[in-house]
Amino acid sequence: MRAAVMYGAGDIHVEDRPDPKIVKTTDAVVRTLATCVCGSDLWPYQSMPATDTGRPMGHEFLGVVEETGADVTGLKTGDLVVAPFTYSDNTCDYCAKGLHISCRNGGRYGFDGVDGGQGEAVRVPHADGTLVKLPVAADSALLPSLLALSDVMTTGHHGAVTAGVSHGDAVLVIGDGAVGLCAVIAAKRLGAERIVLAGRHEARTGLGREFGATDIVAERGEEGIARIRELTGGVDKVIEAVGTRQALDTALGAALDGGTISRLGVPQYEQGPIGPAAFMRNITLTGGASPARAYIEQLLPDVLDGAITPGRVFDRTFTLGQTPVAYRAMADRQVLKALIRP
Amino acid sequence: MRAAVMYGAGDIHVEDRPDPKIVKTTDAVVRTLATCVCGSDLWPYQSMPATDTGRPMGHEFLGVVEETGADVTGLKTGDLVVAPFTYSDNTCDYCAKGLHISCRNGGRYGFDGVDGGQGEAVRVPHADGTLVKLPVAADSALLPSLLALSDVMTTGHHGAVTAGVSHGDAVLVIGDGAVGLCAVIAAKRLGAERIVLAGRHEARTGLGREFGATDIVAERGEEGIARIRELTGGVDKVIEAVGTRQALDTALGAALDGGTISRLGVPQYEQGPIGPAAFMRNITLTGGASPARAYIEQLLPDVLDGAITPGRVFDRTFTLGQTPVAYRAMADRQVLKALIRP
Repeated sequence: MRAAVMYGAGDIHVEDRPDPKIVKTTDAVVRTLATCVCGSDLWPYQSMPATDTGRPMGHEFLGVVEETGADVTGLKTGDLVVAPFTYSDNTCDYCAKGLHISCRNGGRYGFDGVDGGQGEAVRVPHADGTLVKLPVAADSALLPSLLALSDVMTTGHHGAVTAGVSHGDAVLVIGDGAVGLCAVIAAKRLGAERIVLAGRHEARTGLGREFGATDIVAERGEEGIARIRELTGGVDKVIEAVGTRQALDTALGAALDGGTISRLGVPQYEQGPIGPAAFMRNITLTGGASPARAYIEQLLPDVLDGAITPGRVFDRTFTLGQTPVAYRAMADRQVLKALIRP
Repeated sequence: MRAAVMYGAGDIHVEDRPDPKIVKTTDAVVRTLATCVCGSDLWPYQSMPATDTGRPMGHEFLGVVEETGADVTGLKTGDLVVAPFTYSDNTCDYCAKGLHISCRNGGRYGFDGVDGGQGEAVRVPHADGTLVKLPVAADSALLPSLLALSDVMTTGHHGAVTAGVSHGDAVLVIGDGAVGLCAVIAAKRLGAERIVLAGRHEARTGLGREFGATDIVAERGEEGIARIRELTGGVDKVIEAVGTRQALDTALGAALDGGTISRLGVPQYEQGPIGPAAFMRNITLTGGASPARAYIEQLLPDVLDGAITPGRVFDRTFTLGQTPVAYRAMADRQVLKALIRP
């Protein structure tokens, strides 16, 4: 099969790889119909040290089950499925709590001999626990929104849930990337009345408005904080979907005392300002890597009936061979989120 | 009147000060019956730069209303009252949310011309909003436990509430100081089934056991984490009642993924480890300075009927003149919490 492999910053190729086969009896092999490039794929694309072995890329995919191991009981050849961005057994104590991201037997695509998602096929460990069957045809127009359940939509939802968004709330979403925009969808879906979206890319903030953002703040840093405070008087709930220290500082500056900041962007810092000032203000810092698997079935009905359309974040479609072009376009911010059709 | 004033690290005196008088129409003057030394008083006692003007000390007190301003309607001369450790109007948006610590018109005792609590009398701003009447006689045996509502008990309760402690939970309390011990009371009161207390001072951990701790961990650092994990397999809820980086690291090491760490000790650090590791683990960091005023009425019935006895943290009583001795005894860890009877 063909799959995307990264050999260092900016160095990604689509090449021939061995066809995935069942290794464990709980595996399934999925032939991908749609995959995509994640904002987090751009970090290695910008900074990965050169390597000879390469790293299979991608962790969001949707496809058709091609083969199942002897112990897979819930899936059969021909099932259309979506994969959350990590695999998990769905039975351990963490999974039982809905924290599939911390699954005792879970792991990441592209590591430990598991294929990446940006390829023609993927061996999925713990297939019964990981994959979610989709009740649509392989040519459904809903495929992009269903693919979004793999990561961005379930991640945005995690932000809204952990920030405690509920009916009538005012919420600040920092970041107009695909996750930030999905956080807008999620906040709206949970009843937020006012959703301030901090972002400066007009096409993206425009989509954010269509998703439910009531106010857009393009200013950054102190100016951005001042503008958010002018608009809202400060907010109780912040979803931080960037991951930089500047974004966290904006969150801290815009939050009211007693406020909750939910982080969705992987922090690009090791240490953060949680000293006496944050303490005296009773700031809660929550969020983290989304347990996507826990949310897929919850959000699926809303995707199926069109109540939410997260697939709109995919603003350009590429072939698998064009994956390197897709990375470049996303890194240059010419594309919000690249859909890849293998 | 006589009151305790600090002039620098280790340099505290009881001296004559002007008798408090009504300054604003919303003030009351309270003649103190009982006050005490807080763990947080020990930070300036150990590190305050020398000053000529001095700083009136203390922020926990209970006493009798001596005089009220023209606009005070809820209190009258002779009322026995307890003061939360900051004053607040009980009407602003923060107070309305129960976050009195962030009151728009609130402040701290010992600053901005307001007396400290370690003295014979205190002018209390926003008296109606701040003081809570106590339905007991001035010679009641409950006075120590009622005084504990001023800070340590309401702070311990804040930790249990913000950690989300509920029926059947396993909770780790880090720190065997008065706040940690009160957090044990609070966790037990909210239904925790297993309460691991991390502390190495046997008299204190012994009291912790009487308050409801089921396990004591005397080890520190990596050894302490290993012991807590051995006992519990990791905990979902941690109350960190120390404030050092080591205590935070213990909390992070002992918490399960998805766990909540509620901080009660004022952080003795500016930056903390909230990078990718904590993010991937979905650790929630919450807590902060307690809105004591919000909790006093909530906890008062349990103190009045003896269901909780936080006053047991006071293990020695001093006269006001002995305040410097009380500080020294607490700093040397010879006394857990010093009660002062002016």
